[in-house]
Amino acid sequence: MKIENPNPIQWQFSERAQGLQSSFIREILKITQRPEIISFAGGLPSPATFPVERMKAAYDKVLSETGKVALQYGPTDGYAPLREWIAHSLSTAGTKILPEQILMVSGSQQALDLIGKVLIDEGSRVLVETPSYLGALQAFSVYRPEFASVATDDDGLVPSSIEGVAKGARLLYSLPNFQNPTGRSLSLARRQELVETCARIKLPLIEDDPYGALSYSGEPMPKMVAMNPDGVIYMGSFSKVLTPGIRLGYVCAPLPLVRRLELAKQAADLHTAQLTQMVVHEVVKDGFLDEHIPTIRTLYGNQCRAMLDAMAEHFPAGVTWTRPEGGMFIWVTLPKQIDAMKLLDTAIAARVAFVPGAPFYANEGETNTLRLSFVTVPPERIREGIAILGKLIAAML
Amino acid sequence: MKIENPNPIQWQFSERAQGLQSSFIREILKITQRPEIISFAGGLPSPATFPVERMKAAYDKVLSETGKVALQYGPTDGYAPLREWIAHSLSTAGTKILPEQILMVSGSQQALDLIGKVLIDEGSRVLVETPSYLGALQAFSVYRPEFASVATDDDGLVPSSIEGVAKGARLLYSLPNFQNPTGRSLSLARRQELVETCARIKLPLIEDDPYGALSYSGEPMPKMVAMNPDGVIYMGSFSKVLTPGIRLGYVCAPLPLVRRLELAKQAADLHTAQLTQMVVHEVVKDGFLDEHIPTIRTLYGNQCRAMLDAMAEHFPAGVTWTRPEGGMFIWVTLPKQIDAMKLLDTAIAARVAFVPGAPFYANEGETNTLRLSFVTVPPERIREGIAILGKLIAAML
Repeated sequence: MKIENPNPIQWQFSERAQGLQSSFIREILKITQRPEIISFAGGLPSPATFPVERMKAAYDKVLSETGKVALQYGPTDGYAPLREWIAHSLSTAGTKILPEQILMVSGSQQALDLIGKVLIDEGSRVLVETPSYLGALQAFSVYRPEFASVATDDDGLVPSSIEGVAKGARLLYSLPNFQNPTGRSLSLARRQELVETCARIKLPLIEDDPYGALSYSGEPMPKMVAMNPDGVIYMGSFSKVLTPGIRLGYVCAPLPLVRRLELAKQAADLHTAQLTQMVVHEVVKDGFLDEHIPTIRTLYGNQCRAMLDAMAEHFPAGVTWTRPEGGMFIWVTLPKQIDAMKLLDTAIAARVAFVPGAPFYANEGETNTLRLSFVTVPPERIREGIAILGKLIAAML
Repeated sequence: MKIENPNPIQWQFSERAQGLQSSFIREILKITQRPEIISFAGGLPSPATFPVERMKAAYDKVLSETGKVALQYGPTDGYAPLREWIAHSLSTAGTKILPEQILMVSGSQQALDLIGKVLIDEGSRVLVETPSYLGALQAFSVYRPEFASVATDDDGLVPSSIEGVAKGARLLYSLPNFQNPTGRSLSLARRQELVETCARIKLPLIEDDPYGALSYSGEPMPKMVAMNPDGVIYMGSFSKVLTPGIRLGYVCAPLPLVRRLELAKQAADLHTAQLTQMVVHEVVKDGFLDEHIPTIRTLYGNQCRAMLDAMAEHFPAGVTWTRPEGGMFIWVTLPKQIDAMKLLDTAIAARVAFVPGAPFYANEGETNTLRLSFVTVPPERIREGIAILGKLIAAML
């Protein structure tokens, strides 16, 4: 039956597909998954935090009680009770978020793709933090924008620097809480200034918030979406507070935009799995996250402290780093003359891994930066790995 | 905390987003979900076929034995054992399909989006059947191609008509088995001619095959991908043979293309849920589908026969229809003067629903056509609904 085919196709890819590149981090992860390596490279949450039994019980309950509905096609916007729960959780005394503003997505990475699809034309200006989340740069890049980097300092994004680069911009992408990759958070004053600036110049502001709940101490900061629900697009995720492998996130946007995102979602994959949404609703509806999230905070907080203490002890003078109060990452700045990519080569030979910082910049990257994650490594291994890194850095000075 | 915002944003959507429209079918479904309506409009499989207990047992087993892995992030290309199972199931005596050729996706609708993203530039020519699957037209439309319709007759797509419209085309999209919306299938001779023609002119051929396993009698037809694995992109789905609500499908493509699709998938949603893939592998790996699919064929075959018999009895002369040997749909052609959209108005008033055919055409549609689905309606209700439709059609003549 097979035909003779002497001239196979030379595939002609679309212009947008020609620039597609694999995530640099995913490539590093392949190298560093060997068990003998102490890996600070991962961006994965700790499996120790996954409530497996609770999830199992919820799958059993949902399939037993409403299996035929859970396994059928569902609405594109998502499972209504879960959307109501999310809208309620985002609402504040001053700002009511409507369930109609919530679109369920297959992990918040999908929200980035849909936002890019709906808001970015080729050559559109898109503002991002310096540095920014690599997955967002990847998702938006498909739609071929012109990235402009907004200045940041130790307190995160600098709102006063926006207007200088905002002309014609379609959106500003921000990660205000325990940012990936830097671990930095925006102060309340900066949040207000940021929201006000964007509202004044009518610039859509994206608030990507996968880590907001993971504060090690004190109350989580107010969300920017509550300050201006007509101008802020909020992205949330169950990946870091429940489990990532189920792929469930959501976007909360002003009604004209969320309806357009819903249409894009319909064309992209019809809807996110009903069963997943019903199970997550079953798990979260009676307050489970209120008990569960503190256990994640404690685990990550302890490991973060172990890493910060080890860095203070082992890293040579001239190296600086952020001191996150939540989330999953620490950002390290090496003396100018050290290339983090070269350090990675020697580190892997010494069985320690991290992610160099340069790929996180939309434009020119700082080659003397790197990202460390502490969430999947126990404290004694953290100390061991940081001591090795400290020696390698010292040797390069 | 909320700011004053007297001038809300006038959202500026991307050019591609300005044309996004809700699926006409989804709009009709909203109207026709009232229980008093006999709906032949749906494209949903019958929940009576969902193996709920089997799925429940598999979720329990996977979460009990490998919960931490199932709930963690996973590889973009998919769960390796499931990809191996699929590659094996697509391989034939003459053609070996490699697991590396398989990319798991969140329902085969996502494969359409990724294929569009990777192969279609604005203005690219895309060939589709006349009529074609609405979801594919929607997915591709986002990338703003120029559609060209390939002629079809009672035996489906006419291969000899391809070359006349193929100049510069990026792909030909076909649904060779029990096509949605017509229920037509391509003969073996046409499949071979189609594959040979596309290979000769180096035109990528998409074989979308959600219904292929649902043949009421006889063996399923050979797959075109086995005739030319270097030029055919095969799309498969678990939606119609297992359950749709979990959102799991796959694409099998030549290696250079599948790697590019994988990069697009990574940017779009990182990966499809690990848990879902592990559960489906658990369900299918020991041959469950070999027992299960015949029960779906029997149910759908009986209901299809009931509908065809009722149409023969109740539809007036001048109405013609397809006689599917599998799948979920019958396609009806009314006398030229009847507009199916007007018929739908009177039908809904009489509590019967269907989908008018015009939206299924990429270019100008035949307004005297309609699609009937029989899979979710029991035989006595089928007879009742068809009798009503027959009277309404007669009244319009």
